[in-house]
Amino acid sequence: MVTAFVMINVGVGWLRKVYTRTDYKEKLMKVTGVKGVYLIFGRYDLMVHLEAETLDEIPRIVDDEIRNIPGIMRTETFMAF
Amino acid sequence: MVTAFVMINVGVGWLRKVYTRTDYKEKLMKVTGVKGVYLIFGRYDLMVHLEAETLDEIPRIVDDEIRNIPGIMRTETFMAF
Amino acid sequence: MVTAFVMINVGVGWLRKVYTRTDYKEKLMKVTGVKGVYLIFGRYDLMVHLEAETLDEIPRIVDDEIRNIPGIMRTETFMAF
Amino acid sequence: MVTAFVMINVGVGWLRKVYTRTDYKEKLMKVTGVKGVYLIFGRYDLMVHLEAETLDEIPRIVDDEIRNIPGIMRTETFMAF
Amino acid sequence: MVTAFVMINVGVGWLRKVYTRTDYKEKLMKVTGVKGVYLIFGRYDLMVHLEAETLDEIPRIVDDEIRNIPGIMRTETFMAF
Amino acid sequence: MVTAFVMINVGVGWLRKVYTRTDYKEKLMKVTGVKGVYLIFGRYDLMVHLEAETLDEIPRIVDDEIRNIPGIMRTETFMAF
Amino acid sequence: MVTAFVMINVGVGWLRKVYTRTDYKEKLMKVTGVKGVYLIFGRYDLMVHLEAETLDEIPRIVDDEIRNIPGIMRTETFMAF
Amino acid sequence: MVTAFVMINVGVGWLRKVYTRTDYKEKLMKVTGVKGVYLIFGRYDLMVHLEAETLDEIPRIVDDEIRNIPGIMRTETFMAF
Repeated sequence: MVTAFVMINVGVGWLRKVYTRTDYKEKLMKVTGVKGVYLIFGRYDLMVHLEAETLDEIPRIVDDEIRNIPGIMRTETFMAF
Repeated sequence: MVTAFVMINVGVGWLRKVYTRTDYKEKLMKVTGVKGVYLIFGRYDLMVHLEAETLDEIPRIVDDEIRNIPGIMRTETFMAF
Repeated sequence: MVTAFVMINVGVGWLRKVYTRTDYKEKLMKVTGVKGVYLIFGRYDLMVHLEAETLDEIPRIVDDEIRNIPGIMRTETFMAF
Repeated sequence: MVTAFVMINVGVGWLRKVYTRTDYKEKLMKVTGVKGVYLIFGRYDLMVHLEAETLDEIPRIVDDEIRNIPGIMRTETFMAF
Repeated sequence: MVTAFVMINVGVGWLRKVYTRTDYKEKLMKVTGVKGVYLIFGRYDLMVHLEAETLDEIPRIVDDEIRNIPGIMRTETFMAF
Repeated sequence: MVTAFVMINVGVGWLRKVYTRTDYKEKLMKVTGVKGVYLIFGRYDLMVHLEAETLDEIPRIVDDEIRNIPGIMRTETFMAF
Repeated sequence: MVTAFVMINVGVGWLRKVYTRTDYKEKLMKVTGVKGVYLIFGRYDLMVHLEAETLDEIPRIVDDEIRNIPGIMRTETFMAF
Repeated sequence: MVTAFVMINVGVGWLRKVYTRTDYKEKLMKVTGVKGVYLIFGRYDLMVHLEAETLDEIPRIVDDEIRNIPGIMRTETFMAF
């Protein structure tokens, strides 16, 4: 089992905001392998706790599922052990 | 009483600028619980000093009032004690 | 219930290393309110998932229990919602 | 005499690029009080060396002249002594 | 009147800790021109709100008074307007 | 022979995404002097290993070839020795 | 095969310097799985290109071999694909 | 002619401070190729403007002359064009 934490920044402001942070939390809870989603205060807006069977699934989930959600601006993934 | 400092970056450049930094200062002064707004030099463009009755009001104010202002690109909130 | 994630950097190198990252993991698991400790790859070395009854317990745990462990060099705490 | 260094990031990519970095260099050389403009490698794309008679002129020049140039995405100003 | 915010990181861990964050708060309150000191959560450990008559007093206070306190590891000063 | 590593962040989210990270990898492999392209996890999305005959070719390749690819948002170049 | 890049900062200054950057380069070339070591300019001092048979070898090499070298102050590991 | 800017952080606090920032300014002015030294406010403490005949002299000056000064904790070099 492989664990990763994906730190996310989302677009804010009238021009770039797509969803509220609570909406992102709901959408991210449906992503494959997601164990928890937290709205956080600090450098990042949201943190996703992700688990997968193999290492190669992590970039696939991050790229195809998380980074495809409208309004997500930046992701930073930490592999965890 | 709960205190937080919200560090803000705003869009700049002809294509992404919505207001001047002085305009943001005025708009941010009207947000619930705001005790002070500073135009700063460094990693951030503006700093908001915020006070609320309970911890849960802080994410509500940051998300619903501050991050909704057009042209605000990024917020980073520091809880203070 | 109040949740926080504490990102930690520990001293490395012969001169400044006190424990291995696996040792820190064990020590941090014994801190009050700790739900999980992860060795991570990225800007930080370790991540602690913390829960407390009230907001004021968080700085007390971070300062008196976590930041007192020899070899911990820096902590960055994210409040979570 | 007050000195400041303004570190600048400009938009890149077909969708967000307005000028080349060489064009920005030329435009920035015409800003009030500019003593030098450097295209740099690292966290920032450009560095502007600025001098003004009083401290209050610095935010005015940064906001009204530098941050108004199309395609400038972010500025970070260091006061120098 | 010139305003600055000084963001501070202090040494942590048994080997490098000199005072508790509460002790630093007390010591920093006695520094010339200090209007407020906050223990914060995020990239920095403490924030100092500073006011001085002239710009030149700010580097003098930061260097001679704040950066001389044992255990202070790093300061990052934001001029405010 | 001059070596540089170019760290890249690309636009994500439905509104700003131009290509997948795998597509960027293919496009970047065709840039002058590119020895390797890696999809990475951390602060950056992609890393390009670049070699050139002279120092002056590096900013030319970075600006004219890499930063012109649609969807590239930010580059940070490290000269290597 | 699993690839990672380990970004390293080393101690500098008379009091904390253990080896020169050229010495670190030599020492790091002997670490298990190292394919290349670069002295770099920017946020980090050195970059190590690492390959291993399985994901679990990466934290073992980083912690037991790289972070044990005297004078290494900080490592930041990027998994690569 | 090759130009570089070296951003420097120096040790602070009673236990790690070697010289005052003004002393560092004097010492750095004597380094080969130095055109200017600035005490700055922001992420870094000092900025050095450096010129050399060839690219290879830059890492030599940074490593052998600048990083050898007692109390210098960290350098970040930006090549300039």
